[in-house]
Amino acid sequence: MKITILGAGGMGSRFAIKLHKKGNDVKLIDGWQINVDTIKKNGIFANFNGEELFEYIPIISPEEIEKDEQQADLIIVFTKSYQLREMLQGVKQIIGPNTYVLCLLNGMGHEEVLKEFVPKQNILLGITMWTAIMEAPGRVKLFGTGDVEMQNLEPGSDHKKFAEEVVGVLSDAGLNARYSENVKYSIYRKAALNGTLNSLCTILECNIGQLGKTKEAETLLKEIIAEFAAVGAKEGINLDQEEVYEHIYQTFLGDITEHYPSMYQDLIKNHRPTEIDFINGAISSKGTKYGVPTPYCTLLTQLIHAKEQIINVS
Amino acid sequence: MKITILGAGGMGSRFAIKLHKKGNDVKLIDGWQINVDTIKKNGIFANFNGEELFEYIPIISPEEIEKDEQQADLIIVFTKSYQLREMLQGVKQIIGPNTYVLCLLNGMGHEEVLKEFVPKQNILLGITMWTAIMEAPGRVKLFGTGDVEMQNLEPGSDHKKFAEEVVGVLSDAGLNARYSENVKYSIYRKAALNGTLNSLCTILECNIGQLGKTKEAETLLKEIIAEFAAVGAKEGINLDQEEVYEHIYQTFLGDITEHYPSMYQDLIKNHRPTEIDFINGAISSKGTKYGVPTPYCTLLTQLIHAKEQIINVS
Repeated sequence: MKITILGAGGMGSRFAIKLHKKGNDVKLIDGWQINVDTIKKNGIFANFNGEELFEYIPIISPEEIEKDEQQADLIIVFTKSYQLREMLQGVKQIIGPNTYVLCLLNGMGHEEVLKEFVPKQNILLGITMWTAIMEAPGRVKLFGTGDVEMQNLEPGSDHKKFAEEVVGVLSDAGLNARYSENVKYSIYRKAALNGTLNSLCTILECNIGQLGKTKEAETLLKEIIAEFAAVGAKEGINLDQEEVYEHIYQTFLGDITEHYPSMYQDLIKNHRPTEIDFINGAISSKGTKYGVPTPYCTLLTQLIHAKEQIINVS
Repeated sequence: MKITILGAGGMGSRFAIKLHKKGNDVKLIDGWQINVDTIKKNGIFANFNGEELFEYIPIISPEEIEKDEQQADLIIVFTKSYQLREMLQGVKQIIGPNTYVLCLLNGMGHEEVLKEFVPKQNILLGITMWTAIMEAPGRVKLFGTGDVEMQNLEPGSDHKKFAEEVVGVLSDAGLNARYSENVKYSIYRKAALNGTLNSLCTILECNIGQLGKTKEAETLLKEIIAEFAAVGAKEGINLDQEEVYEHIYQTFLGDITEHYPSMYQDLIKNHRPTEIDFINGAISSKGTKYGVPTPYCTLLTQLIHAKEQIINVS
């Protein structure tokens, strides 16, 4: 299986390292030239659960795709959400009629972008609980454990067979993949976690523990989860609001209370744009489409976008 | 007219200086002992439009009220909103059946607190466009111009007569007062200004100009103003939303674009609690009471309170 990973950031590097180490035919494509050049020269350095390792993996930028470049069997997208369309546009040449795309990105609505480039039946959607931090060009920090849950966007016998092959390849490489019969539920559930912790910690400029200690945390979480549930109901997803609340509430008690969510790191720490449009912003847009009020998600999206402009990153 | 001013911060000091200079019988009562002691010893130093001046004005703390202390004819309250009840409790002894209370505090709902201490017909409500900054104990910065607009909470011939006397005393002292026939409208209008600029600049940690330059500013302002209008309508106030929007929008163009609103200064700069409960929080509470949805004011109130706890000031 010829695998191309789009985006050589933290997650792209994690998946590339694991798959390449297992002997798979893996190639990275990344849009950040200094990252591409560094990895070409030195490979990817990874601090892997405290141990230093490095791995040479072929990498090019979209501009370096050769005219006779082969089409990929599987493309795994690990760009930032807002870079997905431009990246797919840039690598169009390696997307053939038999190319599948696996999307494990945080948030919702990516399938709308993917559909512009591949037939629906070739889209695999999912979530991953693996984490990764990009520290510098060609350097990532990987720790903890995780898994992958995925499903065909349009289930169908032939296409499910390929999806199951992908599950096998990922699992053989140690990425703990499984085929799900209701991945959309998992996507909503994970988006609700990001739509509370990420957006609130970013606008309040605090870590998870600090948010959890405020008197308002319970109400804020419950209002936001209720909006995700109301919109989800219009898409056949019956989110168990209490379970989702408990799941998020657990992060206030665990060992990641000093963690600043990725959106905080993007905007407040690194002054980069956020993925808010694919999290609370997606609920806000869907809410408008379905006539479901989503004021908390809408205001949070507006505040985060305003903050992006104030920090001068958008 | 025996005038007692509660709160010797920026505004209390401004009014005290102007009234005392004109020969009125003025006394300050303040709860911050170091401020009381400094003013007792040195008077109030004021940078008044660039010029240094100072004025000795009698001042005591609530604890220093003598057993035979005379009742005041007029009490002007200039505490922080959230200190009002405690202060009135502390000075109960000087409030007699003929004592009037004038409240020019920002925000809404103060009359509910005042009613616990004086009869409704003795309450004068208003707004002031004067500004003042407290720089240190006994030291204030006063600049620009302003005015006072006031009205009896319960209009009635006798009580209006006293109110008009107060208008005369304030105007004689150069404070540009006038009697209003619809001060509640002005209170709503000014609260809408504070409910947009103060709360948004605080949660976004920006100045007025930075807020005004964001693409979201227009929507944010209009949504918040609409909530003030919807709640106001239940109290007989028909807020002219377009005029209020234009009024606030003008601040984005004027010479105060680099100004950080008072709530920002309280919370972000000085790490003190905010008056959010009397601005967006008042609209949120009234909304609940009247069955009017106010999600923007409610979420902003919750976010500001969460931020207070994160900054550890509440």
